[in-house]
Amino acid sequence: MRFDEAYSGKVFIMSRPEVEDCDVVMYGMPMDWTVSFRPGSRFGPNRIREASLGLEEYSPYLDKHLEEVSYFDAGDIPLPFGNPARSLDMIQDYVQQILDKNKFPLGLGGEHLVTWPVLKAMYEKYPDMAFVHIDAHADLREEYEGEVLSHSTPVRKICELIGPENVYSFGIRSGMREEFEYAKTSGMHMDKYEVVEPLKKALPSLENRNVYVTIDIDVLDPAFAPGTGTAEAGGITSKELLEAIHLLGEANIHIVGADLVEVAPAYDPTEQTQITASKCIREMLLGWVK
Amino acid sequence: MRFDEAYSGKVFIMSRPEVEDCDVVMYGMPMDWTVSFRPGSRFGPNRIREASLGLEEYSPYLDKHLEEVSYFDAGDIPLPFGNPARSLDMIQDYVQQILDKNKFPLGLGGEHLVTWPVLKAMYEKYPDMAFVHIDAHADLREEYEGEVLSHSTPVRKICELIGPENVYSFGIRSGMREEFEYAKTSGMHMDKYEVVEPLKKALPSLENRNVYVTIDIDVLDPAFAPGTGTAEAGGITSKELLEAIHLLGEANIHIVGADLVEVAPAYDPTEQTQITASKCIREMLLGWVK
Amino acid sequence: MRFDEAYSGKVFIMSRPEVEDCDVVMYGMPMDWTVSFRPGSRFGPNRIREASLGLEEYSPYLDKHLEEVSYFDAGDIPLPFGNPARSLDMIQDYVQQILDKNKFPLGLGGEHLVTWPVLKAMYEKYPDMAFVHIDAHADLREEYEGEVLSHSTPVRKICELIGPENVYSFGIRSGMREEFEYAKTSGMHMDKYEVVEPLKKALPSLENRNVYVTIDIDVLDPAFAPGTGTAEAGGITSKELLEAIHLLGEANIHIVGADLVEVAPAYDPTEQTQITASKCIREMLLGWVK
Amino acid sequence: MRFDEAYSGKVFIMSRPEVEDCDVVMYGMPMDWTVSFRPGSRFGPNRIREASLGLEEYSPYLDKHLEEVSYFDAGDIPLPFGNPARSLDMIQDYVQQILDKNKFPLGLGGEHLVTWPVLKAMYEKYPDMAFVHIDAHADLREEYEGEVLSHSTPVRKICELIGPENVYSFGIRSGMREEFEYAKTSGMHMDKYEVVEPLKKALPSLENRNVYVTIDIDVLDPAFAPGTGTAEAGGITSKELLEAIHLLGEANIHIVGADLVEVAPAYDPTEQTQITASKCIREMLLGWVK
Amino acid sequence: MRFDEAYSGKVFIMSRPEVEDCDVVMYGMPMDWTVSFRPGSRFGPNRIREASLGLEEYSPYLDKHLEEVSYFDAGDIPLPFGNPARSLDMIQDYVQQILDKNKFPLGLGGEHLVTWPVLKAMYEKYPDMAFVHIDAHADLREEYEGEVLSHSTPVRKICELIGPENVYSFGIRSGMREEFEYAKTSGMHMDKYEVVEPLKKALPSLENRNVYVTIDIDVLDPAFAPGTGTAEAGGITSKELLEAIHLLGEANIHIVGADLVEVAPAYDPTEQTQITASKCIREMLLGWVK
Amino acid sequence: MRFDEAYSGKVFIMSRPEVEDCDVVMYGMPMDWTVSFRPGSRFGPNRIREASLGLEEYSPYLDKHLEEVSYFDAGDIPLPFGNPARSLDMIQDYVQQILDKNKFPLGLGGEHLVTWPVLKAMYEKYPDMAFVHIDAHADLREEYEGEVLSHSTPVRKICELIGPENVYSFGIRSGMREEFEYAKTSGMHMDKYEVVEPLKKALPSLENRNVYVTIDIDVLDPAFAPGTGTAEAGGITSKELLEAIHLLGEANIHIVGADLVEVAPAYDPTEQTQITASKCIREMLLGWVK
Repeated sequence: MRFDEAYSGKVFIMSRPEVEDCDVVMYGMPMDWTVSFRPGSRFGPNRIREASLGLEEYSPYLDKHLEEVSYFDAGDIPLPFGNPARSLDMIQDYVQQILDKNKFPLGLGGEHLVTWPVLKAMYEKYPDMAFVHIDAHADLREEYEGEVLSHSTPVRKICELIGPENVYSFGIRSGMREEFEYAKTSGMHMDKYEVVEPLKKALPSLENRNVYVTIDIDVLDPAFAPGTGTAEAGGITSKELLEAIHLLGEANIHIVGADLVEVAPAYDPTEQTQITASKCIREMLLGWVK
Repeated sequence: MRFDEAYSGKVFIMSRPEVEDCDVVMYGMPMDWTVSFRPGSRFGPNRIREASLGLEEYSPYLDKHLEEVSYFDAGDIPLPFGNPARSLDMIQDYVQQILDKNKFPLGLGGEHLVTWPVLKAMYEKYPDMAFVHIDAHADLREEYEGEVLSHSTPVRKICELIGPENVYSFGIRSGMREEFEYAKTSGMHMDKYEVVEPLKKALPSLENRNVYVTIDIDVLDPAFAPGTGTAEAGGITSKELLEAIHLLGEANIHIVGADLVEVAPAYDPTEQTQITASKCIREMLLGWVK
Repeated sequence: MRFDEAYSGKVFIMSRPEVEDCDVVMYGMPMDWTVSFRPGSRFGPNRIREASLGLEEYSPYLDKHLEEVSYFDAGDIPLPFGNPARSLDMIQDYVQQILDKNKFPLGLGGEHLVTWPVLKAMYEKYPDMAFVHIDAHADLREEYEGEVLSHSTPVRKICELIGPENVYSFGIRSGMREEFEYAKTSGMHMDKYEVVEPLKKALPSLENRNVYVTIDIDVLDPAFAPGTGTAEAGGITSKELLEAIHLLGEANIHIVGADLVEVAPAYDPTEQTQITASKCIREMLLGWVK
Repeated sequence: MRFDEAYSGKVFIMSRPEVEDCDVVMYGMPMDWTVSFRPGSRFGPNRIREASLGLEEYSPYLDKHLEEVSYFDAGDIPLPFGNPARSLDMIQDYVQQILDKNKFPLGLGGEHLVTWPVLKAMYEKYPDMAFVHIDAHADLREEYEGEVLSHSTPVRKICELIGPENVYSFGIRSGMREEFEYAKTSGMHMDKYEVVEPLKKALPSLENRNVYVTIDIDVLDPAFAPGTGTAEAGGITSKELLEAIHLLGEANIHIVGADLVEVAPAYDPTEQTQITASKCIREMLLGWVK
Repeated sequence: MRFDEAYSGKVFIMSRPEVEDCDVVMYGMPMDWTVSFRPGSRFGPNRIREASLGLEEYSPYLDKHLEEVSYFDAGDIPLPFGNPARSLDMIQDYVQQILDKNKFPLGLGGEHLVTWPVLKAMYEKYPDMAFVHIDAHADLREEYEGEVLSHSTPVRKICELIGPENVYSFGIRSGMREEFEYAKTSGMHMDKYEVVEPLKKALPSLENRNVYVTIDIDVLDPAFAPGTGTAEAGGITSKELLEAIHLLGEANIHIVGADLVEVAPAYDPTEQTQITASKCIREMLLGWVK
Repeated sequence: MRFDEAYSGKVFIMSRPEVEDCDVVMYGMPMDWTVSFRPGSRFGPNRIREASLGLEEYSPYLDKHLEEVSYFDAGDIPLPFGNPARSLDMIQDYVQQILDKNKFPLGLGGEHLVTWPVLKAMYEKYPDMAFVHIDAHADLREEYEGEVLSHSTPVRKICELIGPENVYSFGIRSGMREEFEYAKTSGMHMDKYEVVEPLKKALPSLENRNVYVTIDIDVLDPAFAPGTGTAEAGGITSKELLEAIHLLGEANIHIVGADLVEVAPAYDPTEQTQITASKCIREMLLGWVK
């Protein structure tokens, strides 16, 4: 073995060395400065990478091996601490570059607000796209304590950008009254509490469409993902989340980008949150990238 | 904003400033001195308050907002360390005062023995009452290592006070042989392991009655509430506990007081136990106080 | 009470003082030196003992009390650090002695490789035996990074020793493609993801046979057993594992030995993993030893 | 005891019930949104209050009892998440009100940037004041990643406001080259690494002046205060910090306000950081308020 | 190796198997029910035993090996939860038996109140004895919240039993004003804050006397022993505590019994508190038993 | 910013992208399979890298900036789990390659046995070299439980390779009697307990020599580095370790390689161990590479 070719342990397991050879670019968005309860998701991407070392490279669920997908782990975008506006601009610009090269953007958060600039970049390329949102929280506020750029607002802004009728939320169990009223009256699709069964019902209406999927790890019950900022009791199990990921992969839709957000390792000394997140990323890579 | 009116962060979220204006008095019982395994529930009430800061004030389950209930968080009763007898007297006296003012007592524990003096106060006002007990442990011992006042005896004492036929236990999965035999022969109602389905069956027999409800957080599986003194595998999920709370709220019964006990934060660095407990308290406030 | 007869707190609850009077010998195998991800299971046996102090001695599931089973907790075998080959020899020799005295060996791990020397000893005494394996991982590799003695290989070696048709794996959700192919083509029995339902179907084919059972605590979802080396999302609940243990006890089979492995306390500050493991050990003692 | 007068457990130990009767207003500044490494100090104030429950009310160092000082714990200022500019305005306005009532402001952080608006309010009232800064970090940057409002800039801004010759920094062991050069050339006073001896030398030059003192808990070595955002090895001991507090109290200076910042409880499961911080607050109350 | 002679890992390292052959009896007092702040020291003795596995058996400080001292680890006394009076009686009776056999009692706590019954037993045998007390807290209260039996009262009670002139306290940095006044006026010896230097000065006055020594682990700064109930900043280092132990061993006194108390493992996930305590026990065994 | 040039967060802060341009190669040795007490140091190198993100790039101690040293972080050598012999061969081969390119090898452990193969490679290039060893443990055993390759033997083997008179150990406070006797009789240099003063005395005798330095993080007291496998009370402070590093840098010697080992993050949820280790690495880079 040559000393300058040592396996580095610095990237998601089996990331390839050259971006040019890859269909997917995996990137971290280490931002948590608009979080209202417990911050810390800025360390999520790195710990998901670290936990990937304990993963098998083969999925018995999908009978596929990570060597069948080509991806490049580009590391974290160097976002400026405490500056939401500039951070969001950098993310949008970054994802635009990935899309310009016709690669699949796979983002690791960070707080959920990061999905907003990603969507702006996606929407330019896919103006007919739909948005699938798996989360405990509605994230439909117009503002949060006077701030328009908040971890509680991204889905509302996305509704306004791509049209509420193109937004599908699953698993929602927390929000303000106004958010649930907006969900009812705006024409968007929202299923409360559960993910798997509602998804089965909704997927036919998404057939043949371009779809971006965002997963907030807090859709899981805190028992399954304690390492997150706003843990919310009454959630789904990791078995159900894996099933949802598999349903999306089997559906007749075109997934054009995705992210998994809100892993905050400091609250989980057991490390199970990032262990579970890294398994979800493996299944997303194997099942969603075609 | 005036400096002497700052939101204090010292009480359960949305507690009102004046007790006179409130229907509910929330109070802590920071006692854990008869605990046989892992003590520490004396810090439970304060951490439940702290975790309430991360809660939404609106419940999508009940379509209600905390501003629709008026409650006063009175803080913790200053119980004397290591003196069970005097502590229990103080609790009983304290709850009697709340009842004298015709307010709903909502207690935060503390070990489960605290429910015993609460019940003595309740029973004086409501001699026809029933007692609903959601717990992993039977708590039906006559004594524990020679002690009559123990965290293992309160339900037995309550049976003796209000009559076993008025006591309903759900979710029980641990106890001595003698306790399960007492449950069978005494005429009390006990359902093992499960809560939701047995509760559905039992609720009709409680119609129109005055009911006090006690929830021991350890009815949850340790996965969902690791921060408790005597964690017991094989429990229910937080989704099931929320459903049980909702069933009680929808039933045609008069809930006249309640408590939630045995949150011991030191065993749960993830803080999920108090996060879940504070959500349960929100649902109890919104669903049980009428 | 005499000072030299104090209850010691040093052994599994209700262990008897003299090995001669006992049907069961409980012993620890504190080995973790071939572990690929997070080591630490060498401390598992001792923490399971410690957690047993919080257990009731009576099981409401089985209506039996630990005084109805006679067992001796022999402590941990003093295995030499970092030397797998010599450690395995010591374990095999140790279990042979237990079997020579016609006692039931009940092992506490330690990493899963320890089951391999146990099986060699068992097989000499019971050449017609079957092997039931409850685990998240297939453990069917021929080697791991060039090592034949690895925590990933024991079940493969056992297949080769006792014949794959005598090996029954349940709950498997992780492994290499080659392992799953071996499972399909070798004639062994493997059920993926689930335990309870597959076990119900498989048990009739084991009727009247001598059976050794190994439980890897990581068959549980990380939510229920975070304290383990290679936690794997998508697992079963502790309620399901208890049900599986009860099914095995009720079946018409002869359980002749058992172990429970891979409890690694350092990753679980909540201590729930060892609390759950010690409850499983109680149910195994009460339900499996006849 | 009356139920509506229960000891609340919600405030710093022995806080008085009415602000009018008090010489000191203690207040929390739960802000951490410009932090560059590990956020979480927003929970510092509340945990310092909680830890105060374990304190003796008497100081053997000073032979004084907390009943000899009158202070009101006003709770936390409700700062808007992720909005540094507005948060700083609110803090400044808040402290101005305290000063208008001629009370001593004692702040609990929160990140160190909160000291900047406090100083602006102080400076209006005490234009001849000096500033004593005990910290591991110089906090002398002009900007941080393009941001002028950052936890790395407050001391620089204070230098510019009140004149560098009025700023005294002690214990500094981390910063950029530019910060140390500014310290050398600007005329400010900076002592590196140590606190007690340099303070003894510097105090005579502060005689009879009005002084504001800020303590960043990370001046302590991480061994003594692991619960902080940017822990920095090579620090002082808690014994030395207590001695520094006592030196300031004995000096012939007029301390007109103070704060203690950067306690981030999530990184310290031992809770020693807030335990130590609450003892420092006791000594500051007893020794500095005259 | 015979299976029924396996090294058990259940006792302090190198404990001998038969009490008759030993000069020392080591025993645990798992009591914490009068603790006012953070309980949990009942698990101290067992974790000190577990941590002893990581110790060398040889001390380079004393050039002695544990095989040169004969001791029997008798396990924990089974104290009744929540009953201080009965627990103290059991401890006194237990220690009396050890003394009747002319063995050296070496106790592991547990809260500090356990030293009171030990002293009663010691005093009967050694009516001329002196008492050396190394601690952060004076423990000189007459009562605590109305309780005479409290973790804050043992040293006062011992003063009253054996005469204050025979009591030597070192390292005290916390207590009520009344306690420090009692220390000054009663004729007892008390040194505040420091241990090593005061001990050097005091030891000559103890020459040739029988001495019992109690060490409260919280004399260490929380940095060195975070796992304790009432951690108190400003303490000594572990190097200083080891030096104090060595000074006592070299002095011309007859140490006739000792204990080390207040290790509460739940507050220290790093385990350093019990690791340090077990090293102290080794040095006490090697240096104090002659 | 280009998306494929994002700052990666995957390497030690300011590592350069191309090995050819660098004077130093930093590499991880993630091995812990011969550890006798608490394993886990295999994760040390990666967490030291992660913690480096919180470091300033400038050292006020040395008035130097990391841009003044050119180093390449090569990641971790992919060592085979549980196979000490093969792992050591790989390390030796790896370091030989670094030396062949005339670069400075800076290793991150892993257990201390890794220093043995590094030294074999170093010795081939520098047959006249000296070895400076800063550690709590003598590591001078001939074997450990029958194993010659153990974390307790590397310094003995190094003595035998390069001659004991060329080995200098500092800070040693744990070992077997035989090790301390070997130290006395072999002609090696050993200083017990302290590092700074003995180093000052010893350095003149090393003038103008080629020196390899190994630092075992457990030379620090557990208060300063709880995240290590065999924590040993009575150690030095982080301030003293930094001073020792600076003394070595200022001395008139040629440091030709170095390592820092035994960081085991799982035992330190505060993360202070890796935070301190990464600061030591910065000072070693700035002070030792010339």
